[in-house]
Amino acid sequence: MENPKPQLLSVRVRERNQFLPLIMDGKRASTTAGKPIKCRAAIARKAGEPLVIEEVIVAPPNHHEVRIKIICTSLCHTDVTFWKLEHPPAIFPIILGHEAVGVVESVGEGVHEVVEGDTVIPIFLADCGECKDCLSAKSNLCTNFPPRPSHGMQRDETSRFTDINGDTLYHFLNVSSFTEYTVIDIAHVTKINPTIPANRACLLSCGVSTGVGAAWKTAKVEAGTTVAIFGLGAIGLAVAEGARLCGAKRIIGIDVNQDKCEIGKKFGVTDFVNSSNIGDKTLSQIIIEMTDGGADYCFECVGLTSLVNEAYASCRKGWGKTVMVGIDHPGAMLTLSSFEILYSGKSLMGSFFGGLKPKSDIHLLEKLYLDKELKLDEFVTHEVNFDDINKAFDLLLEGKSLRCVIYMNK
Amino acid sequence: MENPKPQLLSVRVRERNQFLPLIMDGKRASTTAGKPIKCRAAIARKAGEPLVIEEVIVAPPNHHEVRIKIICTSLCHTDVTFWKLEHPPAIFPIILGHEAVGVVESVGEGVHEVVEGDTVIPIFLADCGECKDCLSAKSNLCTNFPPRPSHGMQRDETSRFTDINGDTLYHFLNVSSFTEYTVIDIAHVTKINPTIPANRACLLSCGVSTGVGAAWKTAKVEAGTTVAIFGLGAIGLAVAEGARLCGAKRIIGIDVNQDKCEIGKKFGVTDFVNSSNIGDKTLSQIIIEMTDGGADYCFECVGLTSLVNEAYASCRKGWGKTVMVGIDHPGAMLTLSSFEILYSGKSLMGSFFGGLKPKSDIHLLEKLYLDKELKLDEFVTHEVNFDDINKAFDLLLEGKSLRCVIYMNK
Repeated sequence: MENPKPQLLSVRVRERNQFLPLIMDGKRASTTAGKPIKCRAAIARKAGEPLVIEEVIVAPPNHHEVRIKIICTSLCHTDVTFWKLEHPPAIFPIILGHEAVGVVESVGEGVHEVVEGDTVIPIFLADCGECKDCLSAKSNLCTNFPPRPSHGMQRDETSRFTDINGDTLYHFLNVSSFTEYTVIDIAHVTKINPTIPANRACLLSCGVSTGVGAAWKTAKVEAGTTVAIFGLGAIGLAVAEGARLCGAKRIIGIDVNQDKCEIGKKFGVTDFVNSSNIGDKTLSQIIIEMTDGGADYCFECVGLTSLVNEAYASCRKGWGKTVMVGIDHPGAMLTLSSFEILYSGKSLMGSFFGGLKPKSDIHLLEKLYLDKELKLDEFVTHEVNFDDINKAFDLLLEGKSLRCVIYMNK
Repeated sequence: MENPKPQLLSVRVRERNQFLPLIMDGKRASTTAGKPIKCRAAIARKAGEPLVIEEVIVAPPNHHEVRIKIICTSLCHTDVTFWKLEHPPAIFPIILGHEAVGVVESVGEGVHEVVEGDTVIPIFLADCGECKDCLSAKSNLCTNFPPRPSHGMQRDETSRFTDINGDTLYHFLNVSSFTEYTVIDIAHVTKINPTIPANRACLLSCGVSTGVGAAWKTAKVEAGTTVAIFGLGAIGLAVAEGARLCGAKRIIGIDVNQDKCEIGKKFGVTDFVNSSNIGDKTLSQIIIEMTDGGADYCFECVGLTSLVNEAYASCRKGWGKTVMVGIDHPGAMLTLSSFEILYSGKSLMGSFFGGLKPKSDIHLLEKLYLDKELKLDEFVTHEVNFDDINKAFDLLLEGKSLRCVIYMNK
């Protein structure tokens, strides 16, 4: 394939919510291929301490690997969770970040799916395209590269990052996007339509896709139904957006933060319950009253196992589906009454990356956005330069942002 | 509707597994309508003690009720469970039995769905035909008459049975079929094709339908898939039969009783695991090895919540469905890892009466039997006269019978 026409790398911070065109430098790609690249990365050296932007060396991609120039990245709760984590599976120093969009700088041997200059998003979940799961329309859980905490490239467990002293820097969730350049296994790279603005495309890399997919692919929300969403963070709002796209008639959002009442309306939330203000009632009592028997679909998007019980209890007997989307701490156990499961006609399932297949389903979301059906703009509440990456952490920790986009180029 | 042509009531005990034609006495029906009927019933007077056949008085049906002459009944584990139960919800004296077939002797006011002479099966689960659930194709859990331990007629909680001393005898599961005549709410009565032999039709009243429905309606087993069934009692074997009818490629039966290996073959079980002989391995390890990753569908048919965990673990990641069919004791709790639910792509559901709608889905099973597609004959391992009803209990307790049909007429 011909290299794209060289263009000035003119990515700059724009006004909030202005679209950022994806423009890449074809020439630079060809001159750096096969060589280490020195660039800037935001390194987490210690749990909970501000990231430090340093120069790092990014090795060329090995077999089946792709080196990507990150255009922009966004901050997801999972980055913050691992940044705060003091014990394994946390490891330091590490380059965090897993929601991003970039341009292929060079590819390793055996990579035929993308070429230099392609616009891609990294996805933490693998899609090898060869195993029983990747070949099945029903699963998105690649057998060859199962999701697990890994600190290097998944095929050889080694790192492609070293700091200026030659010390290893660890990878995060098979992506590591808080760096100008990263190396990612081709199983985690999805080529996208380059006309989608970069500061929107990055949202498809994890959070928004997870929520939309949970409604669309996991729960298969039917038109005219009622949905209850426990927790209106970015994921919960993306579930609302997915349910809206599926034609849900009523979307009940539940959150402790009253501000989410107005925010939710942007994403199709029709009813709001402030869960910090429900008196002696349980959430399920309230949802059952509001819906005359329970919601058709309930989504737990906080990551509290106890809230899964409320979601399950809030579901309509006979056909209600409860979908776990939020991630509780490892070891959290869900306990349900055996009788309740047997006699209720309800079902329970988890939704990992929204049940989406990274290399095929993302294209539908991309198209829905370009067709102005899927909302992405509304998720971007803040934008910062790479140098201000710690500000993105502050905004998320303060509950002020849904998604903060971080621009790699000053 | 014209009364059926009077015929000699020639029901008699036949050779085992001979078909018993449904022949009714239209004349008698018309002469007893509106009056109490004195007949024989098998009464459980004390937990665990042999039933006693006594004369009882069966009152005429009230509004929305139907008095039915039982032709034959079969013994289900639930009868035995409640017979043994010493504490509430158990109550004595009671007329047990809930799998049966009979002929309508008379109907109360407001009953338009059946008339005297119709062949019917009683079903413990209601189908009022009017509520949100009964009007929905997705639910079989009637809202107007929810399943609950009731000891009388469900609309007024009174009994239609008295013993010869005038003392009340309690109803069981809205049916009470261990009697020559019973009174059942029309919501629990399904008219069936009178050409189906009585000693086969009664099996559709509960157990076989529950198992077949669990595979067909609850799990929606797809052709070419792999099924694992934990427990090969009548319900588990009926699940196998349902899975076979759905086109499952491989049906793995698991039981502690080696005899079930041969028995299972009759119902489509392709592989047998003797769970009392698996060494240090867990059942899920064995099933995962046998299936290269797990079964597409797992059914727990014993009623042990701990076995539900094994079934869940035996399911294929990505799409596996675990269906609870067996009934554990009230208060039994199922505990699952929150991470496992989230990351496995599996789903969990219960199946109550196989997810079947009593007044519509039964007709498909009836047709499948008459078309020689659904196996019923093979479930009937024993047949006894009403006088020998306690023998049916012995056979089930000794694990010797799948279904023992009890003939009401000597």
